[in-house]
Amino acid sequence: MKRVIIVGAGFAGLNAARALARGRKAEPLEITVVDRRNHHLFQPLLYQVAMAGLSPAEISAPIRSLLSDRRNLRVRQEEVRSVDLAGRRIRTDGAELPYDYLLLACGAEDNYFGHEDWAPFAPGLKSLEQATEIRRRVLTAYEQAEIEPDPERRRGLLTFVVVGGGPTGVELAGALGEMSRFTLARDFDRIDPTSARVLLIEAGPRILPSFDAAQAARAARDLESLGVQIWTESPVTAIDAEGVELRRERIQAGTVVWAAGVRPAPLNQKLGVPLDRQGRVLVETDLSLKGHPEVFVMGDQARVGGEDDEPLPGVAPVAIQQGRHVARNLQRELRGKPREPFRYVDKGQMATIGRRRAIAQVGRLRFAGFFAWLVWLVIHIYFLSGFKNRLFVMLQWTWSYVTFGRGARLIVGRADRVPGG
Amino acid sequence: MKRVIIVGAGFAGLNAARALARGRKAEPLEITVVDRRNHHLFQPLLYQVAMAGLSPAEISAPIRSLLSDRRNLRVRQEEVRSVDLAGRRIRTDGAELPYDYLLLACGAEDNYFGHEDWAPFAPGLKSLEQATEIRRRVLTAYEQAEIEPDPERRRGLLTFVVVGGGPTGVELAGALGEMSRFTLARDFDRIDPTSARVLLIEAGPRILPSFDAAQAARAARDLESLGVQIWTESPVTAIDAEGVELRRERIQAGTVVWAAGVRPAPLNQKLGVPLDRQGRVLVETDLSLKGHPEVFVMGDQARVGGEDDEPLPGVAPVAIQQGRHVARNLQRELRGKPREPFRYVDKGQMATIGRRRAIAQVGRLRFAGFFAWLVWLVIHIYFLSGFKNRLFVMLQWTWSYVTFGRGARLIVGRADRVPGG
Repeated sequence: MKRVIIVGAGFAGLNAARALARGRKAEPLEITVVDRRNHHLFQPLLYQVAMAGLSPAEISAPIRSLLSDRRNLRVRQEEVRSVDLAGRRIRTDGAELPYDYLLLACGAEDNYFGHEDWAPFAPGLKSLEQATEIRRRVLTAYEQAEIEPDPERRRGLLTFVVVGGGPTGVELAGALGEMSRFTLARDFDRIDPTSARVLLIEAGPRILPSFDAAQAARAARDLESLGVQIWTESPVTAIDAEGVELRRERIQAGTVVWAAGVRPAPLNQKLGVPLDRQGRVLVETDLSLKGHPEVFVMGDQARVGGEDDEPLPGVAPVAIQQGRHVARNLQRELRGKPREPFRYVDKGQMATIGRRRAIAQVGRLRFAGFFAWLVWLVIHIYFLSGFKNRLFVMLQWTWSYVTFGRGARLIVGRADRVPGG
Repeated sequence: MKRVIIVGAGFAGLNAARALARGRKAEPLEITVVDRRNHHLFQPLLYQVAMAGLSPAEISAPIRSLLSDRRNLRVRQEEVRSVDLAGRRIRTDGAELPYDYLLLACGAEDNYFGHEDWAPFAPGLKSLEQATEIRRRVLTAYEQAEIEPDPERRRGLLTFVVVGGGPTGVELAGALGEMSRFTLARDFDRIDPTSARVLLIEAGPRILPSFDAAQAARAARDLESLGVQIWTESPVTAIDAEGVELRRERIQAGTVVWAAGVRPAPLNQKLGVPLDRQGRVLVETDLSLKGHPEVFVMGDQARVGGEDDEPLPGVAPVAIQQGRHVARNLQRELRGKPREPFRYVDKGQMATIGRRRAIAQVGRLRFAGFFAWLVWLVIHIYFLSGFKNRLFVMLQWTWSYVTFGRGARLIVGRADRVPGG
């Protein structure tokens, strides 16, 4: 009976666990999934929680329920503190767990590139806590603007800055623009929510650098039609409670969101193995650690190939495919077959802008607008974990589409801290 | 143009606002609704959020959207600090607002009867923050029990104490019992969730003192069939991080919930008007303040009649009827007609126990079991604010009824504080 420990139940870990524990031809495995959270989170839709379109429970599900039909599998909610590679055991806060195979899939966290002090003023978008905190800040800004007599300060409250022009930043900015144009416009008397400024700030020469220039330009036009101003070539030099500082300019902003970068989980630093410059573990082509074929690293935590190869994007499809691949290799090995190298099948990428537009590129195919948005919608519903979540998200979206309403416009929690930040 | 200020958008305030601002025969009124929250909360279902059955957004709605079709009405999210009765103005953090009529409906908060230090260990159930905190504690207790090797401490973690045998305590305890029997039983390997102890602790001689003895006994049997142990005549003498102390006994408990009492909003203490022993404002039969006919106090904040009269129960129907009554009286006065005294039309009371049982008494009618539960369900759906909430709660309940699942089993937020407590 081999003991397999999977650390992290994100896309990589969850898919590895599902594939390994898959019923019938039951391998003689004892699988333990360890995660510091009790829930799997569908991160691609997290920005919709931040923008009050969906509730936290609609894009997440208890890891236990997702895996409850698997017999030879246990779930432990605790944080892994260190890995003893030589002794083949992991250490958590309260326990030491030995393994025969270890699968690490701890994901990534926000990267402020040395400016950790910006975190309280510009939460990122990696956890449900951060998403509800951003929601709280955005909605509170409107409420405060409504009762603020000073026009200067009102303008500051109604200025929203999204730092980082990747897909997350674009989706956030689009949703923000749309929310002020349509949803909130009806509800405020003294302020005109369409006067809200949404700034999307990008250090590089253009937004969505991973997309074709033409597609990115299309997205930029769509964003601008929602009232979003895009500032490129604008590296942020400081963020504080008052707003954002660029090289030659200061923006008074009530709400700032960080979507400018992530870095691998800090556990990597404790492994004592070679990392790339971003801190990702350099793994072999089968995703195992050099010298430790019993240890695999997947998802945002790992980098396949050398420093010179183009790294794979930090997206869900990579993690899902890697999780399944490692599971398949393990099963092959248990049947005495050799492992196979991981090859990423790129199925394309997409980003949505507001309520009914998106851009997509699949292979050589490029499409945009309403049709791309429909494809985006179908894919996201399909990959969402749990049938119930699919049903409820679909209902919420139908509702919002028809009414322009947003289902979860709740201000909860207090201002004194960023729970996830 | 008369200025009307309504403080608090609970059941009383919201219903007063809706009735006053009601369209056509438009009174010459300028209405301002002030609430420190942005949302109206349907408190009767708050325990379902604490028990992971519903999401916060499903039992609440932005006050703005609920009132957005009213023309002569504004909403301000801010906290009222004091009332200047002589000068006819209220003071908030940032503004002074003059009024011609003032309607106070600030509701109630948890009452620890002088033991405020118990609050962090035993959150009450008055806000969404408290509900999600209780949810976090209950679910975390199961997760910790699953990895706890020491049987003694495991038993403590799986002991849940509800203090207070009124309707809230009964509904909480029933939901807790059911959750461990059915929902969680499937998902844990090392612990047997049916071994969880749920204790309902009541200082008085029996639970549900506002119900008939026979109905209360029926509820007690139903609770016991869900594994809930009921301890009556057991006043709590101390609560700390380890559990609860009774006069002659200590209970090690990982989770304690406070449902033993509420008291009126602290604003009452600053009004300088006569209060009853519980701190409620003593109002005239038309709910106005003696000597200040332009000020009305409604809901949990007020007490109609003298100290000797039986006080009205602190339930939604009282608040709703009072809100509407004050609005009607104001409209009569504006048309030169005399005010009418408030008379509570008691439509009965009910409490639900678990997934398909309830007790109800309406006038001389008594019923219990599945039929009572169906009536409970229809009434709660009907009174829930917002059509969308009604639809989604109904869907959630249908889903849970069929699958025994609970839709919102999320652990979010940290252990270091009780947000609402």
